Amino acid sequence: MYLLSDILGRPAADIDTPALVIDLDAMERNLARMAAFAAQHGVKLRPHAKMHKSAALAKLQMAHGAVGVCVQKTAEAEALAALGVSNIYISNEVVSPFKLKRVAALARELEALGGQLAIAVDSPEGLWRLAQAMHGQHCIVRVFIELDVGHGRCGLAPGVAAVPLAAEIARHAALKFGGLQAYHGRAQHFRTVVERREGIALVIAHVEATKEALQAAGFEVPLVTGAGTGTFALEAASGVYGELQAGSYLFMDRDYADNEADPAQPVFEHALFVKSQVMSVSASHAVVDAGHKSHAIDSGLPAVHGLALDYSNGGDEHGIVRGAVLPALGDTVWLIPGHCDPTVNLHDHLLGVRGGLQHGTVEQIIKVDARGALT
Amino acid sequence: MYLLSDILGRPAADIDTPALVIDLDAMERNLARMAAFAAQHGVKLRPHAKMHKSAALAKLQMAHGAVGVCVQKTAEAEALAALGVSNIYISNEVVSPFKLKRVAALARELEALGGQLAIAVDSPEGLWRLAQAMHGQHCIVRVFIELDVGHGRCGLAPGVAAVPLAAEIARHAALKFGGLQAYHGRAQHFRTVVERREGIALVIAHVEATKEALQAAGFEVPLVTGAGTGTFALEAASGVYGELQAGSYLFMDRDYADNEADPAQPVFEHALFVKSQVMSVSASHAVVDAGHKSHAIDSGLPAVHGLALDYSNGGDEHGIVRGAVLPALGDTVWLIPGHCDPTVNLHDHLLGVRGGLQHGTVEQIIKVDARGALT
Repeated sequence: MYLLSDILGRPAADIDTPALVIDLDAMERNLARMAAFAAQHGVKLRPHAKMHKSAALAKLQMAHGAVGVCVQKTAEAEALAALGVSNIYISNEVVSPFKLKRVAALARELEALGGQLAIAVDSPEGLWRLAQAMHGQHCIVRVFIELDVGHGRCGLAPGVAAVPLAAEIARHAALKFGGLQAYHGRAQHFRTVVERREGIALVIAHVEATKEALQAAGFEVPLVTGAGTGTFALEAASGVYGELQAGSYLFMDRDYADNEADPAQPVFEHALFVKSQVMSVSASHAVVDAGHKSHAIDSGLPAVHGLALDYSNGGDEHGIVRGAVLPALGDTVWLIPGHCDPTVNLHDHLLGVRGGLQHGTVEQIIKVDARGALT
Repeated sequence: MYLLSDILGRPAADIDTPALVIDLDAMERNLARMAAFAAQHGVKLRPHAKMHKSAALAKLQMAHGAVGVCVQKTAEAEALAALGVSNIYISNEVVSPFKLKRVAALARELEALGGQLAIAVDSPEGLWRLAQAMHGQHCIVRVFIELDVGHGRCGLAPGVAAVPLAAEIARHAALKFGGLQAYHGRAQHFRTVVERREGIALVIAHVEATKEALQAAGFEVPLVTGAGTGTFALEAASGVYGELQAGSYLFMDRDYADNEADPAQPVFEHALFVKSQVMSVSASHAVVDAGHKSHAIDSGLPAVHGLALDYSNGGDEHGIVRGAVLPALGDTVWLIPGHCDPTVNLHDHLLGVRGGLQHGTVEQIIKVDARGALT
């Protein structure tokens, strides 16, 4: 059997394949650049921990100025809270009464840790269910009203629809109106800067209209939260958003790097790689031992790092690489995953390498604490 | 926290979402149909455990006539062997000296269990590395020479290229020539019966040419192994294949069900489902809590079971369903995954339900023992 702990302190060359590897130097530069950006623009940073699912990385982000983290799932919040992450926002709807009992228990747990739980709602029924679960709990959950600002998934229509929800939140002692959740996921990946500017301008108009409707009804909006790695400079410059939820900046996947760079944003480096090995070579191609059980392909295939090779999908356990010069049997091929979030979710651990992928040393084994935390 | 054991004996309606659920009645009918087919056609069955990654299901298949299982990864073999699965074929190339030491240890372990290990090779270098690792191990590994019979991934060109490998295998006391590995993965999903017949006819011609080349050089071919859920009736009828590797028949995913049915094959039922819940409803669509972290989308999106709804991808944690009649907030929506293998790999457990999805009871919790076993 492969004992993971054996690899600590050993050369990156000794990492068995396939494995998910972090270039710690690149990751720490990304971390510092985002912290500096948030400080400079006077916005709070609450990175999305759905990306890394790791308590150690959540704490690292909080040590670098983040006010807490977002998650999408109750079970992710539970996994991080159990390891001491105390300020968590479930930026998503939860409507199962069974899960809402867990949400209430989490709210108590985070308060005991000196922190706080927040959650999103987008319907009167969902809010009523949350209020039922929180009734008599002697703790408080901050509630954000989610708007559909163009993504077309969850969220209320912008404008007056938020007013009755804000009014209902005010009726419950255990609920506190946190503000608005407004995230346009698709806009993160609009390829040109112009498209992203136009997309987020509409988002901001929707948020402002909703703020005005709430204010006209007597409800102040404490915070607007949202934004991702593709557009956060636009939300930060809006004067409307107080908190950024970008997560992928830490690892920077192939898909985000395919965006036209916005000079208003810091430049982030690829810090997440799949180490793979050539296991078969023919006249036309080589086969590496990493397929879509090693990296997610929802946002396209991985890029090959540092070699002029094209990767095509070879199935669950294989990748096929082609190019003018093929690697030899046993060679290492480093892949840059198409999408970091679901790629990390395929792995139990991230191996943190210091000093570069080629000649560096394995310095950390970072557990993916909330891997598979689906509920 | 969600205690998994609490769900045993409870109604399927109480399963928290998203969750991967087996309809045990349907699965057992699939199991019996495949066992009957193999017995009737006089071929051995060695199902691919890369699909379910579960020792309990591997043993269930062996209790229903399977001679053993295939896996793709050394770590999968280790996980199953540790739980007593004793006859395992790694139907894939392993070329890392570190992993080949693990292969040698596995060969000893399986012999101690009264079983046997087999592995595939497709290059002189790979065979030499395997022989080095097995040297002096006082146990035997069966070695299959993999042919590229049309898939275009691993494998030698059919014909005489196999001869020097068979000759080299014969020189090593710890290696025994097992026969030919010949699997055409893409042909499994050729949609029409005619396309599959034509594809497998070529496969069989390649295998026969290779057998003849080997026999002409004095090497008998003990076994030809391969075939999947899309084509196995063709390989079984060929008189050339002695062993079938189909795995997906047990759960039957949406992609295989999209094939035109071949009357020569038994009919398999969908037995694998993602239970999801509606978490948001708008005028145009409903959102369920299962996205591509709950089910793999490499072979397309899931189908909605029993309701006239179309599923579209809503990202890592969401699915969007549309139709004339939308489900209500909190409703259950059962999904049929596009591809079972990488879907199972996203989950720690399968919940086995007896008596139907709607009104049945959770009878088994089946661990996905080799989930994430990538190396």
